[in-house]
Amino acid sequence: MTKVYPDDSLALHTDLYQINMAESYWADGIHNRKSVFELYFRKLPFGNGYAVFAGLERMLEYLRDFKFSDSDIAYLRDEVGYKEDFIAYLKDLRFTGDVYSMIEGETVFGNEPIVRIEAPLVEAQLVETALLNIVNYQTLIATKASRIKHVAENESVMEFGTRRAQEMDAAIWGTRAAIIGGFASTSNVRAGKLFNLPISGTHAHSLVQAYHSDYEAFHAYARRHKDCVFLVDTFDTLKSGVPSAIQVAKELGDKINFVGIRLDSGDIAFLSKAARKMLDDAGFPDAKIVVSNDLDEYTMLNLKAQDARVDMWGIGTKIITAYDQPALGAVYKIVSIEDVEGDMVDTIKISANAEKVTTPGRKKLYRIIDRENGKAEGDYITMYDEDPQSEEKIKMFHPVHTFISKFVTNFEAKNLHEKVVENGQVIYTSPAVSEMAQYAKDNLALLWDEYKRSLNPEEYPVDLSQKCWNNKMRNIAEVQEMVAKVSEGLGGK
Amino acid sequence: MTKVYPDDSLALHTDLYQINMAESYWADGIHNRKSVFELYFRKLPFGNGYAVFAGLERMLEYLRDFKFSDSDIAYLRDEVGYKEDFIAYLKDLRFTGDVYSMIEGETVFGNEPIVRIEAPLVEAQLVETALLNIVNYQTLIATKASRIKHVAENESVMEFGTRRAQEMDAAIWGTRAAIIGGFASTSNVRAGKLFNLPISGTHAHSLVQAYHSDYEAFHAYARRHKDCVFLVDTFDTLKSGVPSAIQVAKELGDKINFVGIRLDSGDIAFLSKAARKMLDDAGFPDAKIVVSNDLDEYTMLNLKAQDARVDMWGIGTKIITAYDQPALGAVYKIVSIEDVEGDMVDTIKISANAEKVTTPGRKKLYRIIDRENGKAEGDYITMYDEDPQSEEKIKMFHPVHTFISKFVTNFEAKNLHEKVVENGQVIYTSPAVSEMAQYAKDNLALLWDEYKRSLNPEEYPVDLSQKCWNNKMRNIAEVQEMVAKVSEGLGGK
Repeated sequence: MTKVYPDDSLALHTDLYQINMAESYWADGIHNRKSVFELYFRKLPFGNGYAVFAGLERMLEYLRDFKFSDSDIAYLRDEVGYKEDFIAYLKDLRFTGDVYSMIEGETVFGNEPIVRIEAPLVEAQLVETALLNIVNYQTLIATKASRIKHVAENESVMEFGTRRAQEMDAAIWGTRAAIIGGFASTSNVRAGKLFNLPISGTHAHSLVQAYHSDYEAFHAYARRHKDCVFLVDTFDTLKSGVPSAIQVAKELGDKINFVGIRLDSGDIAFLSKAARKMLDDAGFPDAKIVVSNDLDEYTMLNLKAQDARVDMWGIGTKIITAYDQPALGAVYKIVSIEDVEGDMVDTIKISANAEKVTTPGRKKLYRIIDRENGKAEGDYITMYDEDPQSEEKIKMFHPVHTFISKFVTNFEAKNLHEKVVENGQVIYTSPAVSEMAQYAKDNLALLWDEYKRSLNPEEYPVDLSQKCWNNKMRNIAEVQEMVAKVSEGLGGK
Repeated sequence: MTKVYPDDSLALHTDLYQINMAESYWADGIHNRKSVFELYFRKLPFGNGYAVFAGLERMLEYLRDFKFSDSDIAYLRDEVGYKEDFIAYLKDLRFTGDVYSMIEGETVFGNEPIVRIEAPLVEAQLVETALLNIVNYQTLIATKASRIKHVAENESVMEFGTRRAQEMDAAIWGTRAAIIGGFASTSNVRAGKLFNLPISGTHAHSLVQAYHSDYEAFHAYARRHKDCVFLVDTFDTLKSGVPSAIQVAKELGDKINFVGIRLDSGDIAFLSKAARKMLDDAGFPDAKIVVSNDLDEYTMLNLKAQDARVDMWGIGTKIITAYDQPALGAVYKIVSIEDVEGDMVDTIKISANAEKVTTPGRKKLYRIIDRENGKAEGDYITMYDEDPQSEEKIKMFHPVHTFISKFVTNFEAKNLHEKVVENGQVIYTSPAVSEMAQYAKDNLALLWDEYKRSLNPEEYPVDLSQKCWNNKMRNIAEVQEMVAKVSEGLGGK
């Protein structure tokens, strides 16, 4: 069986190259230089007009507990082969930096720093992989959930995906993220316990099969459960399932709360309408129709267009894996580092692709809100020492297509970064998940509808300040100069 | 912060409806009836011609440890509201059944039982969700890895996807599955420790940025690390990265092992050829070129078609999330259950879709291997009491298109199910992951190439015995009769 380590820690949940780099930094004596890293993604997932940030709570727990355990140390020494001097250094390593982050439920867009880490170089480097692993997945799922909830409108959406999740952590952290994004409940009992989430579910086909009869199975279920949603498609939905559900509901009357029925296969548009009529005709106009079966926002839109009679949606595979785009490409880039004299020097990563060139320097992020209509005009990235609120008007221009610009006045500049870790101590207390969900919902009210539609939304502006832009251009010029020198000096040899 | 439960168990890692059904079974006194469930998927993922089973070791650990912990019990009683009598019953519940399973690395196809659970109804029901969660993900990733390795041929493939994995369990169990499927190593250090996997990695762009120079960064890395793969695309691949790598390799000579360079962006076809020429011209014909950057089997095939000079492939997002199909749809269906007299009665789930109708009964699975050429002729599903090896010839026919059939003689019928749990005790010891990988490789040699090509493979036969087919037809007829009666009896009311 798998080796069991009672002291299994997440400090090793990183890429080997991070530890190799840590060793080089340490051996070279630059490991404690102050550094600034930013975590962000470039492109919004699913063609959506916005994303919903989730993952902070898990990040903070990870940073708080960051420490190589005894068995980690033994593995690094005995199996990987790191030398004793470096091993001794790793033993006492903790995360001692500062972290600024958006809070969970925040609306977030491409190319804006979600998290800023200010820490000794070696520490910031070692935590990269796990932070990305956490933020990439939870933000992806919260965003997918928000898309689905947008289509569901006022109907309730339930998360049913554990069996198709990418292993167990995904099931529980994913469903938590789904609830931040707007889902009402989860079927996963452990997630309910760990995160205090509403849980839901009644019975499966196997119950009906165990009794070889819809009618017998529904009766058996109702003997012990007050709230009943009967699954009606095991043998034949309209000939056996729905009539049996109605029969049992009639027979038991007030002894149960006949919530409704669930359809899990077949032509949902047709079956939901037929079942609705049968329920209404039988005197159960309030009985709900719950549907499931590989649904997502696209099938939901389609079902609605066909006037399917659906009251509640159960979503599985497509939410818990974010099926149509199962990864968010968030990256974690160094933007500034202390030099030998103790001054901070900005740094840039160049790419042939303009969108992949990083934006150097320690920066801040503001949401510019129009004081007249309360709507967000765009997000605004500045150098750390700038204060847009002190200015009467600001010029916002597209960071790639720089000729597109607008001036904004009478605005509130809302700082989107909260200091959550100070000198390695977590100073932020996460609210309940239900509060995060409410925050996400309130936040979305700041956005014009054009940014929220699921197909071809307008592009929300995420702009750089002039100072920030100038700094980026200066860094690019410096690298070009450096490359020319290297090319001259080395290329010919 | 998240509630911390030192006794967090996986028994709650299930859908609420499983516990609700368990309560009904228990209240009705049928909870201990013998039942047989089968776990299988219907459709091969990625359009591939086969899948590679993985997940058994994790399944067995889960079944071995299955037990509601004190905090689980408290949650179910105080938060969910189950009654004291049922709670008392759950407290002592363990998994006491038998499990028959394929072993990890086995080649597997659609509609054949991967795992057969024979257990008291309530136990088999409660473990469904977690077993599916485990098998669905690991089998998916092992299969994707096998596809990628098939394209890579003899070149080595490394797993680099942790940052894009769907949370932490996916990163570690996914990379383990990737290695079963044919990958050579992982970047995830924790996975290396937990599963004794080869780990690999050198440095990232941030190292180069920290030194503001390729040349300085490579030197810094080489001071502490013997084996060097330099990442050359931070500023300018051909003007700075590759020349700097060559310069450092020349300057340090035998002091390091200059393994090669890594390309992580840009036009890999062009850059790899240009870099190859520079390395060759500089006297490093053995230096390897490692490439990464959103690769999968499709981009790899394309790069090969363009004669890209690649020696090793680093695969991230596309393997760890199985990007183009991030879920395998394995299901878990009851096929037989004890009746009140103690006899086993088969059971079926009907669907409007022929492929979704289950195959009732306790069954066995054989791989029919031609004794002359050693190749697999197909897989053959029989009722439990059949022994195909005792027959001179068997008729294999397509389970949906039944008119397609063939007779097979001079065959070996290899039983693909091993008894792995007996009366709740795990009796199977998993081999090392490297052995599972070897087994997977050896298994694939049984398949004709036509089943293994990545595009439009031939369909491998998975056939039912005549007895098995007849049993299924009888069950369908019985259900139709029952539905007709119900419809008559209830529908008119």
